[in-house]
Amino acid sequence: MFSASSEHQHVRYNPLKDEWVLVSPHRCLRPWSGQTETAPDDQPPDPLNPLLPGATRSSGQRNPVYTSTYVFPNDFPALLERVPDPPPSDHPLFRSSAAKGTCRVMCFHPDSTMTIPLMTVDEILAVVNEWVNQLKELGRKYTWVQIFENKGAIMGCSNPHPHCQIWASSYLPNEPRVKERCQKEYFIKFKRPMLLDYLKEEMIKKERIVILNAEWVALVPYWAVWPYETMLLPINGKPQRMTDLTDEQKRSLAEIMKQLNIKYDNLFKCSFPYSMGFHGAPTGPSAAPGDSPHWLLHAIYLPPLLRSATVKKFMVGYEMLAQSQRDLTPEQAAQKLRECDDVHYKAKK
Amino acid sequence: MFSASSEHQHVRYNPLKDEWVLVSPHRCLRPWSGQTETAPDDQPPDPLNPLLPGATRSSGQRNPVYTSTYVFPNDFPALLERVPDPPPSDHPLFRSSAAKGTCRVMCFHPDSTMTIPLMTVDEILAVVNEWVNQLKELGRKYTWVQIFENKGAIMGCSNPHPHCQIWASSYLPNEPRVKERCQKEYFIKFKRPMLLDYLKEEMIKKERIVILNAEWVALVPYWAVWPYETMLLPINGKPQRMTDLTDEQKRSLAEIMKQLNIKYDNLFKCSFPYSMGFHGAPTGPSAAPGDSPHWLLHAIYLPPLLRSATVKKFMVGYEMLAQSQRDLTPEQAAQKLRECDDVHYKAKK
Ligand SMILES: O=P(O)(O)O[C@H]1O[C@H](CO)[C@@H](O)[C@H](O)[C@H]1O
Ligand SMILES: O=P(O)(O)O[C@H]1O[C@H](CO)[C@@H](O)[C@H](O)[C@H]1O
Repeated sequence: MFSASSEHQHVRYNPLKDEWVLVSPHRCLRPWSGQTETAPDDQPPDPLNPLLPGATRSSGQRNPVYTSTYVFPNDFPALLERVPDPPPSDHPLFRSSAAKGTCRVMCFHPDSTMTIPLMTVDEILAVVNEWVNQLKELGRKYTWVQIFENKGAIMGCSNPHPHCQIWASSYLPNEPRVKERCQKEYFIKFKRPMLLDYLKEEMIKKERIVILNAEWVALVPYWAVWPYETMLLPINGKPQRMTDLTDEQKRSLAEIMKQLNIKYDNLFKCSFPYSMGFHGAPTGPSAAPGDSPHWLLHAIYLPPLLRSATVKKFMVGYEMLAQSQRDLTPEQAAQKLRECDDVHYKAKK
Repeated sequence: MFSASSEHQHVRYNPLKDEWVLVSPHRCLRPWSGQTETAPDDQPPDPLNPLLPGATRSSGQRNPVYTSTYVFPNDFPALLERVPDPPPSDHPLFRSSAAKGTCRVMCFHPDSTMTIPLMTVDEILAVVNEWVNQLKELGRKYTWVQIFENKGAIMGCSNPHPHCQIWASSYLPNEPRVKERCQKEYFIKFKRPMLLDYLKEEMIKKERIVILNAEWVALVPYWAVWPYETMLLPINGKPQRMTDLTDEQKRSLAEIMKQLNIKYDNLFKCSFPYSMGFHGAPTGPSAAPGDSPHWLLHAIYLPPLLRSATVKKFMVGYEMLAQSQRDLTPEQAAQKLRECDDVHYKAKK
C-alpha cells in the first residue's frame, strides 16, 4: 500500500507553509539513551487549584461555581489591550510595530480529571459552542483570534485542569500570515481552495486517514512534522471560520475530537500531551462571512511524543537551524493511530 | 538608555527570516508553577561512553586514541548517501523530492568533562580549524553543510561528551533558504549585504552587544526569539563562509566562543544548554569564493533557559500555532549577559 517514497529518505513539501520536511524512515532503528520525561499521568488533584469552580485565583478574583465551560481573562496576559505605541522605526533592519490584544483562559469542565477523551460528546459540544462565541465576540475587534490548548507538563502546561487559551491580537501572526499567502496564491492559480483539493485527494488515497465521521476527517498531513501530528478537516461545505459551522458540523467536531483523543491516549497508554488549535480566515472589523474563499477552517494537533509516554521527539539543532526532520513516515503514523483501540484504556479497567 | 519600544508590548520584525516576534516585557512578573528540568549538571563520567578515545561504538567500530578533535560518521544518520529517488510527484499538493546527504559526529576533546567554556583557546581553535576542513571537504559535493551543536539533555543531547554534528545535504534546507532569499532581496534593493548594515548600526547603538573582541561581536539580535539568544558576527571583512576566515578571525572566534560560553554558564550557574550552529553562503559543486556578496557568515546560539537552570521557555501553543513570544526584551537579555562575570564560576572555587 505504501508508495516507494515512503520507504526511503526524501523531502516533502508543505504547500500551506511553503516549507519542506526531511523524512528518514530508516532512522526508526536508532536507540535512545537521552533525556526521558516523567510519564504525563495522573497528578493527584490539587485542592488549591485556581481553575476549580469557586477557587480564588492569584489575581484575588474568585471563580463562580461553574458547571460547564468557564472563560476568564488570563491573569498574566502576553497581550494587553492598552499600551503606548512604539516610536516609528527609523531603519529597515530595526522595525517594530504596535501590538494590542487580549488573552483569556477557558476551562472545559469543572472536574480537574476530565480530559477531552473522557468527557461526553455533549460536554465537548459545550466547549465547541463556547469557542464559536469567543471567536464571534473577539473577532469583531481583532484581526486574529488564536484558540489553542497546551496539554501536559511536557508542553509547558502548568495546570492539569482541562483548559485552553484564547489570544486575540491586532496583528496577523506569522503562521496564519503564511497560510493566508499560500492559500491565496493557490486560489489565484487554480481557482479552488487549496485545502478542498487536498481533502479530495486524501479521501481517494486513504492511506493517511485516521478517522472519518459524518462531517470531519482526522488525517496525518502528507507534510506532517511531528511524529503523530494530525489535522481535522470539514468534509462538507467550505467553512472558512468556526463561526461558519452548522450544528451538525459542531456536534460532529465534538465527536471526532473525542475519538481522536481516545486513540491518542491509547497509543502510549497515557494522557497524550500536545498543543492543538484552530486556523481559519482572519477576522477583524472588516471581515465578513464568505469573504475568504481561499480558506478552509482546520484544526491541527502537534503532539511531541515519539516512542513512548516518556520519549519525545526533540526539535533541536538541525531542526532549529536547518529543517524539520521526522523518523516514521506520515503513512506509518496514520496506520498506528488507526490500529489504536476506539475504547479508552482507562474505561476498560 | 532603553527606548520606549523596549518597555511596552510590541512586535519586532526579523528581516533575515521575514518573521515577527511578540515582545511582552510586562510578562516577566508571571510566576512559574509548571514543569521544571533537572539541573543540567555534572553527570558522572560514564566509563562506557562510546565517544571516548579507544571506546567501541554501537556500530562495532573502535575510536582511535584521539588527543584533540575526532570526526566519524554518525552511526544512525538521518541522511544517507545512496537511496533510491522517490517517484515523480503527480500533484502540486503531494510533492516529494530526492534527498541525499551524510551525517558526521565531531568530538571536541578527549575529556568528557571539557565543555567549550572550560577548554583552552588553542583547543577551541582546533575545533574551528576542523570545522573549516569539514566545510571545505563536504561543501565540494553538498549544497548545504550544517554544523550544529546540541548541548545538554534538555536539548535532546544524549551524550554529555563535548561534540557537535555535521549534516550535509543535496538540498538547501528551509532556514538557510529563507535567509538566502531575504539577504538577496536586501542586496538587490540596497546594494549592500544586510548583515553588514545591521552590524554597523549595532556597533553604534551598542545596547544589544554582549562581547566585542578584535574580530567578532556577540550580540542579542534585535529580533531574538529565545530569551538569551545571541549571534556572532565578524566585524572585519565580509567572510561569506567559514572557509573565508583568516587566521586572526579563526583564533578570535575561538576566543569569543570561550568568553560567551563562560558568561552563559555563569548566568544560572550551570552548564548552559543550547543549540548552536553556523550559517554562511550555500556550497556545492558550483559554489566559489566570493560568489555570494549578499551573505555574511554568522553563528547563532539558541538557548532554552528562561529564569534559572531548571525553568525553560516553552515554545508551544501560541508559538507553534501563531507566533514566537518573548518576555524579557533583547536589550534586557544583553544587559544581563554583559553583567555576568568573565571568569567561569567553577574556576573560582
Ligand atoms: O542525533 P542525536 O543527537 O541523537 O539527535 C538529536 O539531534 C537531532 C538533530 O538536531 C534531532 O533530529 C533529534 O531529534 C535529537 O534527539
Ligand atoms: O500561558 P501559560 O500556559 O502559563 O504558558 C505557556 O503557554 C504560552 C502560550 O503558548 C507560552 O508562551 C509559554 O511559554 C508556556 O509556558
